[in-house]
Amino acid sequence: MEITRREVLGGIGGLALVVAATPTATPSAFTATVPWKYAKLDLGAVAERGYAAYSQGGCMFGAFEGVIGELRATVGSPYDAFPAAMMKYGKAGAAGWGTLCGALNGAAAAISLVAKPEVADALIHTLYTWYGETPLPNYAPKTPKFKIATSTANSPLCHVSVTRWCEATGLKALSPERADRCGQLTASVAKRTVELLNDMADGKTVAAPAVVAEVVTCLGCHGKGGVLENVHASRGNACSICHEPTGHPIALKK
Amino acid sequence: MEITRREVLGGIGGLALVVAATPTATPSAFTATVPWKYAKLDLGAVAERGYAAYSQGGCMFGAFEGVIGELRATVGSPYDAFPAAMMKYGKAGAAGWGTLCGALNGAAAAISLVAKPEVADALIHTLYTWYGETPLPNYAPKTPKFKIATSTANSPLCHVSVTRWCEATGLKALSPERADRCGQLTASVAKRTVELLNDMADGKTVAAPAVVAEVVTCLGCHGKGGVLENVHASRGNACSICHEPTGHPIALKK
Repeated sequence: MEITRREVLGGIGGLALVVAATPTATPSAFTATVPWKYAKLDLGAVAERGYAAYSQGGCMFGAFEGVIGELRATVGSPYDAFPAAMMKYGKAGAAGWGTLCGALNGAAAAISLVAKPEVADALIHTLYTWYGETPLPNYAPKTPKFKIATSTANSPLCHVSVTRWCEATGLKALSPERADRCGQLTASVAKRTVELLNDMADGKTVAAPAVVAEVVTCLGCHGKGGVLENVHASRGNACSICHEPTGHPIALKK
Repeated sequence: MEITRREVLGGIGGLALVVAATPTATPSAFTATVPWKYAKLDLGAVAERGYAAYSQGGCMFGAFEGVIGELRATVGSPYDAFPAAMMKYGKAGAAGWGTLCGALNGAAAAISLVAKPEVADALIHTLYTWYGETPLPNYAPKTPKFKIATSTANSPLCHVSVTRWCEATGLKALSPERADRCGQLTASVAKRTVELLNDMADGKTVAAPAVVAEVVTCLGCHGKGGVLENVHASRGNACSICHEPTGHPIALKK
């Protein structure tokens, strides 16, 4: 027996509100599968949303919310059902541990929600390579707390990225300027993420950059099939950000 | 006008299926807010599910799915609506970049979905401290591919964790044994995560461990208020995992 919504609404007035809220598919079947449908977003709106969200929940939440919050605002379902606040854990390199930059963690989570796995992998590699090579932040919010000078991290790690910025500016790691730097960096990462996703939506080929030459050289011995195959990482901005490239056994740089 | 489910089901037999599927709140209002309700889980079931999921989507997905998949199986809604496959991005330290161990990333994401932010922060700090100090993997699956020797990472980073295991075992970073080591480590992390979450559910106080003495000492100069406040990380297993602790300017160890 099949009953249309029109028959239901026409026949039982008192139930209209309840029945109107019934989805055409169960929520689980609709939302549990990735990728979710992406719609092109406005870069400036994403960056501003990411900057504002940083103040509410840190860098990972900021980058994720910049993208997914804008999809929630413009597309609605199923994005309105996603518990974006769960991404607050990634702040300061994951709960203060200084590992993966939270903006990069949140951006990767957003990418993985809206792109097929192989596309997501290429986009994340592209984003991380860009992050390490680019003077950041490169987006200035409409109402910034400070005017922020840039630095180049040469690493996706929070600890390295922040310390390099402190060295470049002479400012302190727990200063309000550094907090705002990370907010503007979060906005910059969210904006770059949506540039990549908009290209994807336009059907442009996602061409992930080649792994940088230095990393390829090191992996020649330390990667798959090398004489000392002891490194699992296949990508990076540089090995020499930590390791002294001349002389073996290698020393770690100051 | 208020209509109970019993009245609806009793009065309109043909609508029973539709009405029974109607949530009491809209899906978005129900699922977009954290924390989601946690129910105590069986440690062995979580570990086995995490081990199996590692083979399907890598370490971050494995740890997340170990916990959240078990909640999906035992609790159902709203966990059946979560797109767990989005967590595949974290493999090998995030898309092969060797940063935050994906098992730790996925575990933190799961924790943040089911715990209040301040509790999640303490649980993640507890988990990461344990990960660095404990010989892992410490859970052997029922049907492992290999018998795996342990190593102690002293770091939450994928690159460091894997290379230390290679050094401890003499095995290769891209070997099937190393892949299975990471699968068993994923199971170990998922199991430890649920030990912590079950304690939370039992109302036990979450007492995050103190930051280790060496890190506290270094932050005395490099942290908040120090003479060279250039480090944003507030937690870690050790600074000396990378930095030579004697002599300044510091050298990085080999």
